[in-house]
Amino acid sequence: MARRDAALPSESGRRPAHVYLVGAGSGDVELLTLKAARLLQEADAVVYDRLVGEEVLALIPAGRERYDVGKARGHHSVPQAEIGALLVRLAGEGKSVVRLKGGDPGVFGRMGEELAVLAEAGVGAEIVPGITAASAACAAMGIPLTDRAHAQQLRLVTAQLCRGDGEPDWSTLARRDETLIIYMGLAKIDAICRGLRRGGLPDDWPVMLVANASLPEQASLVGTLTDMPAKLAAEPLPSPCLVVVGSVVSMGAASPARRNGRGDLAPLS
Amino acid sequence: MARRDAALPSESGRRPAHVYLVGAGSGDVELLTLKAARLLQEADAVVYDRLVGEEVLALIPAGRERYDVGKARGHHSVPQAEIGALLVRLAGEGKSVVRLKGGDPGVFGRMGEELAVLAEAGVGAEIVPGITAASAACAAMGIPLTDRAHAQQLRLVTAQLCRGDGEPDWSTLARRDETLIIYMGLAKIDAICRGLRRGGLPDDWPVMLVANASLPEQASLVGTLTDMPAKLAAEPLPSPCLVVVGSVVSMGAASPARRNGRGDLAPLS
Repeated sequence: MARRDAALPSESGRRPAHVYLVGAGSGDVELLTLKAARLLQEADAVVYDRLVGEEVLALIPAGRERYDVGKARGHHSVPQAEIGALLVRLAGEGKSVVRLKGGDPGVFGRMGEELAVLAEAGVGAEIVPGITAASAACAAMGIPLTDRAHAQQLRLVTAQLCRGDGEPDWSTLARRDETLIIYMGLAKIDAICRGLRRGGLPDDWPVMLVANASLPEQASLVGTLTDMPAKLAAEPLPSPCLVVVGSVVSMGAASPARRNGRGDLAPLS
Repeated sequence: MARRDAALPSESGRRPAHVYLVGAGSGDVELLTLKAARLLQEADAVVYDRLVGEEVLALIPAGRERYDVGKARGHHSVPQAEIGALLVRLAGEGKSVVRLKGGDPGVFGRMGEELAVLAEAGVGAEIVPGITAASAACAAMGIPLTDRAHAQQLRLVTAQLCRGDGEPDWSTLARRDETLIIYMGLAKIDAICRGLRRGGLPDDWPVMLVANASLPEQASLVGTLTDMPAKLAAEPLPSPCLVVVGSVVSMGAASPARRNGRGDLAPLS
């Protein structure tokens, strides 16, 4: 098995402090990369977030240092500055450190702030990508993220776009030729559906919500920009939840492996 | 290790024909998911594309059926209809089939067409997501794809947007608050850089090209919308190549693990 790391300075001469920023994927332990699984088994210390699955954490051998710095939505269990300081301290003790983040650490993972702290402290860092929730959710629902006929573009945003002083520019987000995926959009679903219709998407434009993608407790709803808020009110989903907007959602009916996310097979609408 | 598949109809009662549409990741065999590695080892037949790495294919046990349906850029070695017919035939023979695609099968992988053929033939399908080139390339270059200060949005497109009759709407693609990633953009780099400047991005806006992301032969160039065409002319990169446009590219200098992609450490500009 290839070990590209050999070219990195960490293995030439004395081994300097090193932190691996590793994607834990969407929850299903089998969606971990081979590299992430290996690093988890080799690491002296693992610093992990709330969105990392239990079965993923079970890969860490007994006796290794584990630090839960889990962030709940809306507040940070451990402030970002303390996480950075912890990584620098552990690396300074000569330990091999895995900083484990849910999904892909490069996608809405606040990785840049940790990279900057490590760089300032002279600690080497290596990024190991992971399966982001968008990929896992669409795969589990039997649809592609892009399609030549349905969506030639893919855009990922977070519900943060609904914060701030003004309204987001819905007309630029309301494109029929793209799949728009909104991370952590559950609490803002009313504003999102209303805004995208106002921005120019049809009332019956397909929307899908997926919670716990790839896990046994996966749950989902499929509807339109018009009926989704009521559907969600009738069948609440847990947070965090991924919002998928686009005509690829309608392709779900073409897949015999589609599931309604509650474990049984069902048509997608 | 969890096997969610138990809930799928393929394991209840007689096992029907089944095809796994599996992401092979970006090339580095260690970026394969655990599930993809397991399925490759269990499959009776593997049907794979040109962009799947040699070390990934080496995981297939000897004696299994292997079908190379590799597509070179600009033409299809095996027409899509023939690939679909092959998958249906193999599944009809009761074989466990892995359809292996480079990167993530849901991202610019033409998976929808194969899903439709399988559905029409009554063949069950399951999608296994993979690490797409965008994630692998940014990770290898030491940068995130999104960042709260630099890019709150991520957009993935292909250079197909430069085809067709008219010009793409560059002003909607030229956003300072997003990372724009263009797959297979090498041949169109002049039009892309010129168009994005015309669309409103600054002349010195950061651009990065990455070829063979995550593989030992990885190569890259970092520059601006103004100087990238000349840089590429002076140092040609192989195709396919990922084009990353956005200020996250400038974050590379903050990472001590950054590499210029030719194996040696160097500042990113």
